[in-house]
Amino acid sequence: MSEFSAFDHQMMTHALRLAERGAFTAKPNPMVGCVISKGGLVVGEGWHVRAGEAHAEVIALQAAGDAAKGATAYVTLEPCAHTGKTGPCADALIAAGVKRVVAAMRDPFPQVDGAGFEKLRAAGIEVQSGLMEAQAQRLNRAFITRVTRGRPWVRVKLAVSLDGRTALANGESQWISGEESREDVHRWRARCGALITGAGTILKDDPQLTVRLPAEEAFVAPLRVVLDPGLATIARGRVREGDAPTLYIHGETTKVPRGFTADIAAVPEIQSRLDLHRVLTLLAERGVNEVQLEAGATLTGGFLSQGLVDELLVYIAPVIMGDAARPMFDGLRIEHMSERVRFKQIDLRKFGDDTRVLLEPVPLEAREQR
Amino acid sequence: MSEFSAFDHQMMTHALRLAERGAFTAKPNPMVGCVISKGGLVVGEGWHVRAGEAHAEVIALQAAGDAAKGATAYVTLEPCAHTGKTGPCADALIAAGVKRVVAAMRDPFPQVDGAGFEKLRAAGIEVQSGLMEAQAQRLNRAFITRVTRGRPWVRVKLAVSLDGRTALANGESQWISGEESREDVHRWRARCGALITGAGTILKDDPQLTVRLPAEEAFVAPLRVVLDPGLATIARGRVREGDAPTLYIHGETTKVPRGFTADIAAVPEIQSRLDLHRVLTLLAERGVNEVQLEAGATLTGGFLSQGLVDELLVYIAPVIMGDAARPMFDGLRIEHMSERVRFKQIDLRKFGDDTRVLLEPVPLEAREQR
Repeated sequence: MSEFSAFDHQMMTHALRLAERGAFTAKPNPMVGCVISKGGLVVGEGWHVRAGEAHAEVIALQAAGDAAKGATAYVTLEPCAHTGKTGPCADALIAAGVKRVVAAMRDPFPQVDGAGFEKLRAAGIEVQSGLMEAQAQRLNRAFITRVTRGRPWVRVKLAVSLDGRTALANGESQWISGEESREDVHRWRARCGALITGAGTILKDDPQLTVRLPAEEAFVAPLRVVLDPGLATIARGRVREGDAPTLYIHGETTKVPRGFTADIAAVPEIQSRLDLHRVLTLLAERGVNEVQLEAGATLTGGFLSQGLVDELLVYIAPVIMGDAARPMFDGLRIEHMSERVRFKQIDLRKFGDDTRVLLEPVPLEAREQR
Repeated sequence: MSEFSAFDHQMMTHALRLAERGAFTAKPNPMVGCVISKGGLVVGEGWHVRAGEAHAEVIALQAAGDAAKGATAYVTLEPCAHTGKTGPCADALIAAGVKRVVAAMRDPFPQVDGAGFEKLRAAGIEVQSGLMEAQAQRLNRAFITRVTRGRPWVRVKLAVSLDGRTALANGESQWISGEESREDVHRWRARCGALITGAGTILKDDPQLTVRLPAEEAFVAPLRVVLDPGLATIARGRVREGDAPTLYIHGETTKVPRGFTADIAAVPEIQSRLDLHRVLTLLAERGVNEVQLEAGATLTGGFLSQGLVDELLVYIAPVIMGDAARPMFDGLRIEHMSERVRFKQIDLRKFGDDTRVLLEPVPLEAREQR
């Protein structure tokens, strides 16, 4: 790491912060930030705001103007080399006369994947990669998951009582968590390309599944996805109201009612349940980087037992709902302590009266008995 | 509150900190700290270390010597006026020529309860009470609970998985929480006059229920109490080993085996379960201020549903044990969200990989639907 100076780190930290401003809007593109620096000063900066609009490098170069000549460009992701909705950023950096490009990481996207660096080097620009790579990978873990694993990053959101219950036996579940927690959920939703729920939750809670944020906060509305093997819930539901698109995913053998106009897609079923791997592949193909699952114990348990959960977002309310109430996860067969599903706590904080815990599963190979 | 200066607050803060040093040893007495101050300086300080030994005031006066003449004494609790195992502190303060006594609170203990203040005033000493009273009451809430309500302060300690489970279906429960959490539990145990468990836990986990602390930390070993209606577990168990005393509490109708030598006591049964109110009264009569319940879901659920829980100490481990695993509380019949048992979060922190949450129940009158 000695190849990078403290100043380099400072510039990249700033670029990463800029990138994150696109968290609600850049999808399905990665978040990218760019800082142009010369003589120890920032002469231009930018971030990728919205797919189809200018990339971070182009915005930063425009801000820098002639000052870009002989400058260093710090970018959180390898500049693109292909013409997508906008021209290649590598060409823009070359044309502006930038002398050195420092990237946090290579872009795993097949149309880039080193080609950007190559193009810059061929033009005589000094190129370095790997500065604060871990942070950059964390920032775009959802995009990277889609590109490298062919499925979105999956976050499971749960609001539970202290005794791990999500609803009473009769299904009553409103207001387990407090207002601060519920507001926070909308910020997590806004990051997503899709929000997934199940037919059971539609029938029981009738959620709108939209993003509600203060008016000044722009976001691209995530696709609302209802996993409904038999298309039992399509007749009604607030999930079809509002500005966001809705997609019903049903079983391949289900007959679609004539005249049904909503967006639908089919995936194979396994023991009369939707193949969740196929659900995620389908969403990745539609450009979904990040999904948030807000469903009941059956669907949540299904994702967890199939190893499809990348992150758990749990709001623990200081209430006890009793042993007759509904569990967090159905269908997990854990018979020995060594089989328990282990997580690593990433973040812990208080939200009003609730406790918010953010966790990531411990990979299987790291799961050794203490 | 304007009757007290910033300096007064500073002195009382110090006295409260001194008092707390007796947390593991002063029981069944209250924790008391005393600071003697003159001319803006501390001339003597002390705290009550151990029942039967000198009170805080006497230690502080000894340290102050002649300097106590004309000084102010800050005490966290009203000085005693009666001769118990030691002489009355009020007399000692008078004899030393103290000019002013500032107390955090009146001592609710019937043999004091204002008599200490009266004695001091009668001797011409200026007496003020109520400085940082809330903090002083919190410090000695266990002692106060015993004296004013006739039962100990009850803390329920639980180690649970994220999904609120304390053991697998087969009873396996070892190592839910991590090492840091288990170490912390011993500090909470050390505060107690008694540790309560049930016959089920004795049979299943065979706990030793002792305090294990680094050698330099002194403590008075809490009484180990086994709630065993039918005296089914008396033949064995690590709970009878080690230095701490053990008490079995059984049902009044149970025949005690001939020749049984352990300490036992009987309470009435209600539907073949021990009357928990009577269990607590019995312990209060034995001078127990604070108890920690470390038991299974049945007993824990029993204390909770009878409103006998003052504090919940929950270690949440980042694991999932599944819906077949054992719940935190058995027998809570909660059919509507308005009946859920609500708590207030007092403290939240990370212990290794675990999350420690400290909660107190929200009193019934404050439980209104949000």
